[in-house]
Amino acid sequence: MTDVAIVGANGYSGEELCSLLARHGGVRIAGVTSRQHAGKPVGSILPRLKGHPAIRDLAFSNATADDVIKTGAKYAFLALPHGLAAEFALPLLNAGLKIVDLSADFRLREADVFQEFYGEAHAAPELLAHAAYGIPEIWREKIKAATLVASAGCYPTSILLPLVPLLRAGQIVTDSIAVSSASGVSGAGRKADVAYLYAECNESLRAYGLPKHRHLSEIEQELTFAAGEKVVITFVPHLAPMTRGIHTTTFAKPKEGVSLAAIKETLTQAYANEPFVRFGDTLPDTKNVVGTNYCDIAARLDERTGRLILLSAEDNLVKGAAGQAVQCFNLMAGFPETQGLL
Amino acid sequence: MTDVAIVGANGYSGEELCSLLARHGGVRIAGVTSRQHAGKPVGSILPRLKGHPAIRDLAFSNATADDVIKTGAKYAFLALPHGLAAEFALPLLNAGLKIVDLSADFRLREADVFQEFYGEAHAAPELLAHAAYGIPEIWREKIKAATLVASAGCYPTSILLPLVPLLRAGQIVTDSIAVSSASGVSGAGRKADVAYLYAECNESLRAYGLPKHRHLSEIEQELTFAAGEKVVITFVPHLAPMTRGIHTTTFAKPKEGVSLAAIKETLTQAYANEPFVRFGDTLPDTKNVVGTNYCDIAARLDERTGRLILLSAEDNLVKGAAGQAVQCFNLMAGFPETQGLL
Amino acid sequence: MTDVAIVGANGYSGEELCSLLARHGGVRIAGVTSRQHAGKPVGSILPRLKGHPAIRDLAFSNATADDVIKTGAKYAFLALPHGLAAEFALPLLNAGLKIVDLSADFRLREADVFQEFYGEAHAAPELLAHAAYGIPEIWREKIKAATLVASAGCYPTSILLPLVPLLRAGQIVTDSIAVSSASGVSGAGRKADVAYLYAECNESLRAYGLPKHRHLSEIEQELTFAAGEKVVITFVPHLAPMTRGIHTTTFAKPKEGVSLAAIKETLTQAYANEPFVRFGDTLPDTKNVVGTNYCDIAARLDERTGRLILLSAEDNLVKGAAGQAVQCFNLMAGFPETQGLL
Amino acid sequence: MTDVAIVGANGYSGEELCSLLARHGGVRIAGVTSRQHAGKPVGSILPRLKGHPAIRDLAFSNATADDVIKTGAKYAFLALPHGLAAEFALPLLNAGLKIVDLSADFRLREADVFQEFYGEAHAAPELLAHAAYGIPEIWREKIKAATLVASAGCYPTSILLPLVPLLRAGQIVTDSIAVSSASGVSGAGRKADVAYLYAECNESLRAYGLPKHRHLSEIEQELTFAAGEKVVITFVPHLAPMTRGIHTTTFAKPKEGVSLAAIKETLTQAYANEPFVRFGDTLPDTKNVVGTNYCDIAARLDERTGRLILLSAEDNLVKGAAGQAVQCFNLMAGFPETQGLL
Repeated sequence: MTDVAIVGANGYSGEELCSLLARHGGVRIAGVTSRQHAGKPVGSILPRLKGHPAIRDLAFSNATADDVIKTGAKYAFLALPHGLAAEFALPLLNAGLKIVDLSADFRLREADVFQEFYGEAHAAPELLAHAAYGIPEIWREKIKAATLVASAGCYPTSILLPLVPLLRAGQIVTDSIAVSSASGVSGAGRKADVAYLYAECNESLRAYGLPKHRHLSEIEQELTFAAGEKVVITFVPHLAPMTRGIHTTTFAKPKEGVSLAAIKETLTQAYANEPFVRFGDTLPDTKNVVGTNYCDIAARLDERTGRLILLSAEDNLVKGAAGQAVQCFNLMAGFPETQGLL
Repeated sequence: MTDVAIVGANGYSGEELCSLLARHGGVRIAGVTSRQHAGKPVGSILPRLKGHPAIRDLAFSNATADDVIKTGAKYAFLALPHGLAAEFALPLLNAGLKIVDLSADFRLREADVFQEFYGEAHAAPELLAHAAYGIPEIWREKIKAATLVASAGCYPTSILLPLVPLLRAGQIVTDSIAVSSASGVSGAGRKADVAYLYAECNESLRAYGLPKHRHLSEIEQELTFAAGEKVVITFVPHLAPMTRGIHTTTFAKPKEGVSLAAIKETLTQAYANEPFVRFGDTLPDTKNVVGTNYCDIAARLDERTGRLILLSAEDNLVKGAAGQAVQCFNLMAGFPETQGLL
Repeated sequence: MTDVAIVGANGYSGEELCSLLARHGGVRIAGVTSRQHAGKPVGSILPRLKGHPAIRDLAFSNATADDVIKTGAKYAFLALPHGLAAEFALPLLNAGLKIVDLSADFRLREADVFQEFYGEAHAAPELLAHAAYGIPEIWREKIKAATLVASAGCYPTSILLPLVPLLRAGQIVTDSIAVSSASGVSGAGRKADVAYLYAECNESLRAYGLPKHRHLSEIEQELTFAAGEKVVITFVPHLAPMTRGIHTTTFAKPKEGVSLAAIKETLTQAYANEPFVRFGDTLPDTKNVVGTNYCDIAARLDERTGRLILLSAEDNLVKGAAGQAVQCFNLMAGFPETQGLL
Repeated sequence: MTDVAIVGANGYSGEELCSLLARHGGVRIAGVTSRQHAGKPVGSILPRLKGHPAIRDLAFSNATADDVIKTGAKYAFLALPHGLAAEFALPLLNAGLKIVDLSADFRLREADVFQEFYGEAHAAPELLAHAAYGIPEIWREKIKAATLVASAGCYPTSILLPLVPLLRAGQIVTDSIAVSSASGVSGAGRKADVAYLYAECNESLRAYGLPKHRHLSEIEQELTFAAGEKVVITFVPHLAPMTRGIHTTTFAKPKEGVSLAAIKETLTQAYANEPFVRFGDTLPDTKNVVGTNYCDIAARLDERTGRLILLSAEDNLVKGAAGQAVQCFNLMAGFPETQGLL
């Protein structure tokens, strides 16, 4: 059994991590931290997990790097607000832990892009070059070898999985991409904010955060890597009245002479052996992926305009957060990639 | 008091029509038809309306053209499936009634486009030339003079209201338009179908009907009228887990040299005096328009890509159906346009 | 036109009041207060109401008694937290205004019961004797004559309307009453609290606040008045995943020899001429009353146990708050009781 | 690995069974039947399960007893409408299979009670005496030894688990029990019916099926067994706007001299070693049990009236159906009781 610690376990991603790791089978949860709830039994704050054998005797510890090191964990999952994760990384790495970070802190290769999109200086820029971007379907070998993995964001995962193989294959006009995504409300986190009250979000569909959402920085970084040339896109996120799930609809122009069949062939080959990407004819539906680590993808061509339409769906808290983090961890720690995730 | 009949009153649009007309103040509901429920008191089938003074003594009558004529109504609202409405129109017009049709039957100017998109021959093609397309903000004078108004569809209204003024002003590249819309489940109608069960639609967001949704025919007809040249768009409708509301996000390229300020000026001028279109800075949210006849619109420019993003929201059953029908009726019958709708 | 002021207009009840009074037809909204939003246009904070002719030119004023008096309003609607309303009442009454209070402050006849249930001393106990309890179906004549009406709470209205006529008729065993109610989340108010986030309330049904919910105090006061003897009940409120609506299921034993027919006769007679109570055979459903001022009621007898089951449903923000307040106001000000409410 | 067959796998309970058994670890799904979808790959009809290693190569077979026998399964899970399950039981038992039936067909000990509540003659009354009632917490040893287990219904499980230990202990006045339950819409099954459309159930809370719901028959049978005397209760089920989950609120009178402490002690002892019942202080919330096999229970005393209030919550498709069936199967087949369920 491998000892792991979950740092910041009372948010939605942290709770999902606890749930996934409790039934992983190869890990022992050595510590769970929460500044707000230090000292309290985990089951009293996360009643859904109460009584589970892997959780039963756990209490939240305080959340300093030292507290995490003292647990003896070999791996730390950081489910902290951006900015804070960067402060934990260096002491934990120095103490010999490997890190899966669910925040945005280590997803970008360049500190100035971080500053541009997050409005503050990066707290540990020297680590950026060492971090692997945490989408196994794109960076599997790098993740296996990494000591610090930046598990990818929820919107980025749903946008990158359909586009990256097509850009790698040179099949898409790189300045033709416009994306409309809709997320469940858990994406906003477990924080007291009138905007996310039930009575404000129910029967409500609205765009927000446009035209320059923070996730654009990592999306465009990865699209640019895939295309081998600068890619800039338009991205409109929406809030939809559901707890979980992201649905993404991407408009793009295929390059001259690229048929729908060729696009489907590229995606079929890219994902034929991937356990967590289901590319097929069925139009993705969030309800089919919620509670799973799958990302479902489909492609359609609008022959009347020549536009390609890519559709994708995932659970924002699983493949878009905790599940993907566990998938990365499995690669880092030598477990079968699907362990605890099927 | 003007006598009106509602034909097909047990669907969602028909029920909303009953509700709006019951509190209109200038009309008497002379008849309400439903083949399925003929003979039953309206309040027993539509319990929401039970006991309202304007409904209390009404029973559903059978739904033939003769039944409608016998009510003595001067105006008939047709809330019937497409194909069926066309069969009612001629006898009712011949009997001197004026018609507001909520189906798709008279929205297209050309019978062969109807056949292409609806897969059947039009039942009354000779009437197409006489029908006015029912969006008052676009065709007000024509509606006032018409005996047959084809109240516009829910998706089309949310797409046309932001785009038509910009196309009229020549500010948009006509082949750059891609639209992503999401509708509440009432848009699928009150029919027994597993796909629209609560347990299938809750926590579910999915695209459907792409890439050639039937509503494209009327959308492109009206965009083409506005632009003065052929306009073809990409349109992706989605089903969202809410009862009512449509939210539309439109991507388009402004023509060279057209600024966001110029676009806002066009929309501001177009809608400054319109009682039911609210163009402003606030991002539209379905919850702010549900139960009202408003369409809310906002515009943003993605300066990084040069793409214009238009956002709009309406209640699919009000401004997208029954409310718009009453607004058209008010114009036809000489009532203040907002009567019964504020 | 009668000038009215709405004090505390940015909560859910206050917003609903604005909406109802804007279309009332007999009033002018002379002032709208909000400490939090003083100075801002009403439409910028309550975008649903933006552009309505009755609201268009209004800005929130500060919320002191003097601010309210300065508006020149003849009637003030107080939509304030309990405790605060009591501080406004005396200066407003002294200035000659009449008050409809939506808080709990004036619903109890005795200050010590207030202290017991609300945990604080009453701020204006001398006014308690002058206040009318605001359910027109029970206290119509008193409301007409009152200068201070305490509009009844949402749970109490749904519980009292079915029970009061039966207790008055002596048909119920007074110590046999147990009530299970479920409320939509708007009942918790528009306040930042993790417990009422969408992701906490969706797919969630839970009891709370038992066994001694604050509303019990006014429920038992009114049941006792009706029965002419002390009535104590068990009351279990639940939070249901919906924005609006209250559904109440009441168990009670009919007195020996009292048949279901006799009970139905009592309720039929009590409500035959009431415009906002629909007693009938259909089982009440919140969706049939949401957005209306109706309370729907049905009665069933479980012959196997001899228990009577009373079912009732209302919109917690309309018949349970703002609608009932307007109904009371109509009585106080001499308008037809249903004006603005159908 | 033990071979199992799932008969009637395209309803909600059947789908949940597929999902649970796919990850069980000790079984091989040898066959999955569906008359409606015979011949189609399971993943094409249940897209949520598509691609799972245990499902990937399965197609639905036709649904006759012979088809089930041909799969070679040792255990058959019957997820069929009541009436139909009884027709499968005899041939399957004769062929040596053991059966876990999720329908109501074998839950009652007496055929005439079945006829009274289900309105039809029982198809295999001779088997009733051999069936074990499938709540392991009540009938564990009988289930272990049974060849035919009638997995208990969703409402009954939530009502029996809190009450049975108290009745066994003689702590409750047996004619004092009144129950108010609310179920998610999946409880109505995956069938085309206007009443369960999203737009009919959203924002809707309503009672139904009272005062003599079919589940009363098995509830009272089991309560009577527990009490050792005839128990008759009042039961009001409600439909709540959520996909899954049942919340039950039970009112009852403790016998003279029975304190809340004594009641808590009884429940604590009854469930201290039960892996799937969590009795504690926290008020049960459906969201904490959805997707799990837990039933959460709490108890409160209303000292003002002397009434005991029992609260319980479970997932109607897991502890209320498929999870409980697997729990029973684990006992019958000698697996650890929690296998595949944590």
